[in-house]
Amino acid sequence: MEKISVGLLGFGTVGTGVIHLLTNEQNKFQQQTGSKVEIQKILVKDREKNRKINEYDHLLTLDPSEILENPEIDIVIEVMGGIQEARQYIHTALKNKKHVITANKDLMAIHGSELLQAASDQGCDLYYEASVGGGIPILRSLTDGLAADRIKKIIGIVNGTTNYILSKMSHQSVNYEKVLQEAQSLGFAEADPTSDVEGLDAARKMVILSHLAYSIPVTLEDVVVEGITRVAEEDILYSKKLGYTIKLVGIAEVEDDEIDIRVGPTLLPTGHPLASVDNEYNAIYVYGQSVGETMFYGPGAGELPTAIAIVSDLISVVKNIKHGTSGHHIFLPNQEKKCKLVEDIEGQYFMRLHVKDQPGALSKITGLFNEQEISLQKIIQEPLLSEKLAEVAIITHTTKQHQFEQIYQLLKDLEVVRDVKSYYRVEGMN
Amino acid sequence: MEKISVGLLGFGTVGTGVIHLLTNEQNKFQQQTGSKVEIQKILVKDREKNRKINEYDHLLTLDPSEILENPEIDIVIEVMGGIQEARQYIHTALKNKKHVITANKDLMAIHGSELLQAASDQGCDLYYEASVGGGIPILRSLTDGLAADRIKKIIGIVNGTTNYILSKMSHQSVNYEKVLQEAQSLGFAEADPTSDVEGLDAARKMVILSHLAYSIPVTLEDVVVEGITRVAEEDILYSKKLGYTIKLVGIAEVEDDEIDIRVGPTLLPTGHPLASVDNEYNAIYVYGQSVGETMFYGPGAGELPTAIAIVSDLISVVKNIKHGTSGHHIFLPNQEKKCKLVEDIEGQYFMRLHVKDQPGALSKITGLFNEQEISLQKIIQEPLLSEKLAEVAIITHTTKQHQFEQIYQLLKDLEVVRDVKSYYRVEGMN
Repeated sequence: MEKISVGLLGFGTVGTGVIHLLTNEQNKFQQQTGSKVEIQKILVKDREKNRKINEYDHLLTLDPSEILENPEIDIVIEVMGGIQEARQYIHTALKNKKHVITANKDLMAIHGSELLQAASDQGCDLYYEASVGGGIPILRSLTDGLAADRIKKIIGIVNGTTNYILSKMSHQSVNYEKVLQEAQSLGFAEADPTSDVEGLDAARKMVILSHLAYSIPVTLEDVVVEGITRVAEEDILYSKKLGYTIKLVGIAEVEDDEIDIRVGPTLLPTGHPLASVDNEYNAIYVYGQSVGETMFYGPGAGELPTAIAIVSDLISVVKNIKHGTSGHHIFLPNQEKKCKLVEDIEGQYFMRLHVKDQPGALSKITGLFNEQEISLQKIIQEPLLSEKLAEVAIITHTTKQHQFEQIYQLLKDLEVVRDVKSYYRVEGMN
Repeated sequence: MEKISVGLLGFGTVGTGVIHLLTNEQNKFQQQTGSKVEIQKILVKDREKNRKINEYDHLLTLDPSEILENPEIDIVIEVMGGIQEARQYIHTALKNKKHVITANKDLMAIHGSELLQAASDQGCDLYYEASVGGGIPILRSLTDGLAADRIKKIIGIVNGTTNYILSKMSHQSVNYEKVLQEAQSLGFAEADPTSDVEGLDAARKMVILSHLAYSIPVTLEDVVVEGITRVAEEDILYSKKLGYTIKLVGIAEVEDDEIDIRVGPTLLPTGHPLASVDNEYNAIYVYGQSVGETMFYGPGAGELPTAIAIVSDLISVVKNIKHGTSGHHIFLPNQEKKCKLVEDIEGQYFMRLHVKDQPGALSKITGLFNEQEISLQKIIQEPLLSEKLAEVAIITHTTKQHQFEQIYQLLKDLEVVRDVKSYYRVEGMN
């Protein structure tokens, strides 16, 4: 039986999961590929660190060249994270005709096109299923399963930390800070949660998805990003009363060959397939011109789910080696990038205001909307306890973004309005 | 540019969708495969029939050999349905080294292994993504995306007609007959709905899924099947009160290499990912040992969703031709079949009874459960109007199936029990 040699860059949580699977599921792997896989070397930063598994201690190395320049190694699995070093290592591996599998979303979002081009030039494979949606095989579904369709819209709950936080805020009526602490103690949020809670992690994943779904070379700079730190309990409460759930989603939408790509807290109707995706789970909703609505749900992170994505990639890479089709499955964006102009962007909006509790206040507000030609779909007003104020929550019909920004300014200046507390985009049902 | 010639067997709804996509999306197809696809011949039963598209009238033929024996045709797409004729045509096509794509679940469930073996022997492709879950790329997800994992359980809402009927019964509180009529008039149910409402269609799809997920050659005879015709409004009502939704699901579960495969109305907790899959939509929930819970959601039928699955298969087949890897992706069951013994099958159960409204009745019932060592998780009793009866609904903890069948008999003979109206299996959260 043919032997395939693998070098591992990194031995953290995901690396441990990969080793666990390759060790325990050797038979399954052999059945599927007709090959035996062997881990040859593992690059680490610290040989002495206490690890969950220690029977691989003799494979540890501090020297990347022992993997990247090692003629016996066929496939390099990059699970070290970070950007510049990983990028350089992958380039070296490809230059030396090694196939590469990576779980590195930060790297693929920023330097994906460059690395895929290098792999293609070398006739090598570069697979990265684990970089989006953990154990959900979403990249394959876009490139193979829905290959025949024209994707029009992707809405992704692609960050488990923020979905956990918003789910808990919604179901337990506790505030952001408290849930964040709880999430940190449970390991669902990192000590420095910035990249998650500010929406950056989700933005990176949306860039990767957009490349595959639309073949448009968007970059991180094209994504309008907003995080969840200003989502208040009251926003969640009024969303519920209006029949919506607030989720941090990435939306990438193409109309007339122009893309609009954004990440932010968004109201989804409670009947929307994504609305019941709770806690640390991820889901990617894909709307195709012909297929209509599809959704792919599963664990977005974690040692074993991520390792499943990597080892499934490994099975594909080994099959490609056997079939002589390495490098044939590289998918590079081939469409020109045209971003939707800000003045063409439209949508529905949710808004929550504090209003003076006096006769005619509501009519002044609705009058202003009417004047600005923005029609309202839903509105509720409730008294605010212990202040002479009322709380008003509004859902508009579809309106241009710049019109909405204009009314936001006008409302702030309106005498009966004490404050505009928040506003978010609203998604409808397709 | 290379030209790929396709012969179509059948020109019904799905055939029309395939032609529509191949005509309108020729550019996209060429970009992805580097080949131009041409429909060469279309086998029909009646040349004169009025069709939605008539610019292909010159390609119609009544003679299958014009496709199956035509040396110019590379790929045969079978969308005619039925079993024996389709089986024979596919065998002839494979014998003549033509690759085959089929949407025929009835055929693949019964003769799949034989046809896949024939394709493998000939070095031909045989793809059938459209046979389960319409536009949902579930077969690929099982064989590629989750390739590295050990699947433990699949729960599928794989029949749109029954899901539509149960959803409407649940949301609108109308009875089965009325919803069935409505579904028929809307085209969600066929004039003869037997194969759908009796669960046979779902059983066929579960056989196909089990082959791929477990590599076990189960047959239709191994599936315990029950349809939805005896589901009463009261069952749905009491399920809701107990926190559950009734769905017609197929369940295929493997434990210690033994498979248990069944189709029937089943109570799912309202928080279960499948519980909110409504109307004609399908979803397949897959529990993998390492990946945990995943779910794949989308349209289970329809002209264009099914055509997307077929044309995505076509893209794969054309790529395989180019790469010289035809026939390499055939997946044949390679595990021995061991079905779980009836005495080992266990689960939770729901039961609804009519009980005489007299003191001590409930205690006699719970006493009997206690005697039989079946513990109860939930119970509600409510008076029945206009009769001296009460309605009792019960959810048991996990119990052996034969123990449950025994208590069912004992309850029927109990003096205080007027009638056991219904019972169903209950799924928990994983």
